[in-house]
Amino acid sequence: MKPIVPFVHSLTDSLAQAWAEALANAAPALDIRAAADMTEAERDAVEVAIVANPDPAALADFPNLKWVQSLWAGVERILKEMPGDDIQIARLVDPQLAETMGEAVLSWTLYLHRDMPRYAKQQAQRAWVQHDLPTAAERTVGVLGLGHLGQKSVQRLQGNGFNVVGWSRSAKDLPGVTTYDGADGLAQLAALADIVVVLLPSTPQTRGLLGQRFFDGMKRGGALINFARGDIIDNPALLQALDSGQMDHAVLDVFPVEPLPDADPFWTHPDVTVLPHISAPTNKTTASAIVAQNLNTYFATGQMPDTVSRKAGY
Amino acid sequence: MKPIVPFVHSLTDSLAQAWAEALANAAPALDIRAAADMTEAERDAVEVAIVANPDPAALADFPNLKWVQSLWAGVERILKEMPGDDIQIARLVDPQLAETMGEAVLSWTLYLHRDMPRYAKQQAQRAWVQHDLPTAAERTVGVLGLGHLGQKSVQRLQGNGFNVVGWSRSAKDLPGVTTYDGADGLAQLAALADIVVVLLPSTPQTRGLLGQRFFDGMKRGGALINFARGDIIDNPALLQALDSGQMDHAVLDVFPVEPLPDADPFWTHPDVTVLPHISAPTNKTTASAIVAQNLNTYFATGQMPDTVSRKAGY
Repeated sequence: MKPIVPFVHSLTDSLAQAWAEALANAAPALDIRAAADMTEAERDAVEVAIVANPDPAALADFPNLKWVQSLWAGVERILKEMPGDDIQIARLVDPQLAETMGEAVLSWTLYLHRDMPRYAKQQAQRAWVQHDLPTAAERTVGVLGLGHLGQKSVQRLQGNGFNVVGWSRSAKDLPGVTTYDGADGLAQLAALADIVVVLLPSTPQTRGLLGQRFFDGMKRGGALINFARGDIIDNPALLQALDSGQMDHAVLDVFPVEPLPDADPFWTHPDVTVLPHISAPTNKTTASAIVAQNLNTYFATGQMPDTVSRKAGY
Repeated sequence: MKPIVPFVHSLTDSLAQAWAEALANAAPALDIRAAADMTEAERDAVEVAIVANPDPAALADFPNLKWVQSLWAGVERILKEMPGDDIQIARLVDPQLAETMGEAVLSWTLYLHRDMPRYAKQQAQRAWVQHDLPTAAERTVGVLGLGHLGQKSVQRLQGNGFNVVGWSRSAKDLPGVTTYDGADGLAQLAALADIVVVLLPSTPQTRGLLGQRFFDGMKRGGALINFARGDIIDNPALLQALDSGQMDHAVLDVFPVEPLPDADPFWTHPDVTVLPHISAPTNKTTASAIVAQNLNTYFATGQMPDTVSRKAGY
């Protein structure tokens, strides 16, 4: 008898189907099912579930749940709302994810560095105007958050010639990068960076961290890329900084409410690039292989993968 | 007495002024002047001029001209129209230029790879839709033209994970890259490449090289980046390939007539990104230093830098 593992998610039908296939291919020794296709006895027996941004309440269907394996790295919602303190959460740690995020950071840094938003506006006006281009070495990119994703992003940016500085809440040494920490360090980075890239986790300490003081502390004409969580930015302050010309452009991939509501001013702001949370999509093939390995190890040895500490929040 | 060197160009006043300053800073041992500021005797004595896309006829002011130093790498216009066969043309060979072109190729390849044109259209419609993202290794980029600029571009693309193949008119071996040549090789590359990058010189052999047969030979949904010369593309064939959906997008930085005329359909085509010839702008500081060195060497030793062969056309 194969162990039965429920797959609890809030995905669209077609995406859920694609994931179910990738997981089935990667884990032939497991019986992965929707909760609706399980009997009550089967649900009672469940110790581990695969989750993709589930309604936390849906996990109450499994009274003996010990841990969940997320298909994604971000698990704030289930961390905040999950029933009970004793269910452990394994976030997805996929080396491909950090590569994809590093690629996203480089891609949208180059988008800003090479003035793509400005040239797009010119095309709409049939305007043929060339602008000065500094070298990459003349651009300073400030990376906020120096965990696994931040470190990969720093490497990508440096490998393509940018001058890179980093910031994290607590002091961190990275070879070849000037790093700052704490509130004073954040102000120092703001003053140096032409482009700021946000890769911080959302925690009580980072919520609203980037507001008027930070934007005013940047050089005039700076830019922002947020690939982390929407609530790290004070959005009214950002809009004001863009409207006053203090900031030149923002690339926003994450928002406090997603999908971004129709009435949100970001959609139509001429100096904002809105992306639908696509900086680092999970690769179904590599992610499913990692999920399968974690579950197979658990059923063979009782050993869980590293899980998230609910106390620290990341 | 400093040698007098005329600066013959078709630049705007402000750009000419910026160049004159950069050249004067880099070459304090030379007296660089506009032709209008020279006497007839001074013009008769001239053996070398600095040129920036000059009206070729303006060079007839200098009856004893032996060679010209271009501020740019592209010299097709003076090659075609210059009076006399015996004036040599030194194109600018600036290592920074190849870095800048490699950066441009990487930037707009990532622009296509990361679906930026599609996400921009979605923003205009307030549409929150995520699309599958292949890894860079799953994208094949075909680079046409494997000279200095092409080789740097290949390195940049490979360094960022893309699968790269190359093509040149005559066979060329590059370490670590599968290369094709000739007409059959061009068809083979078309069938493989998701994104084609054009870095070919404009010669009688390359004019109109990429037409219906090439676009039809690509995989459906392919993309094109032209950073070379406008006349290498058969534009009606490209428009047809875009309109039929055979090609997904084109990034065009160069056109048969520049600035691109207001009535040109490329300006408003939803699947074309129009850029105003900005892929690899000359860096005035590094370029002026190279020009100064070439001229100082010539006045000290009579030795010209490498010059362009009018016969080969590049």
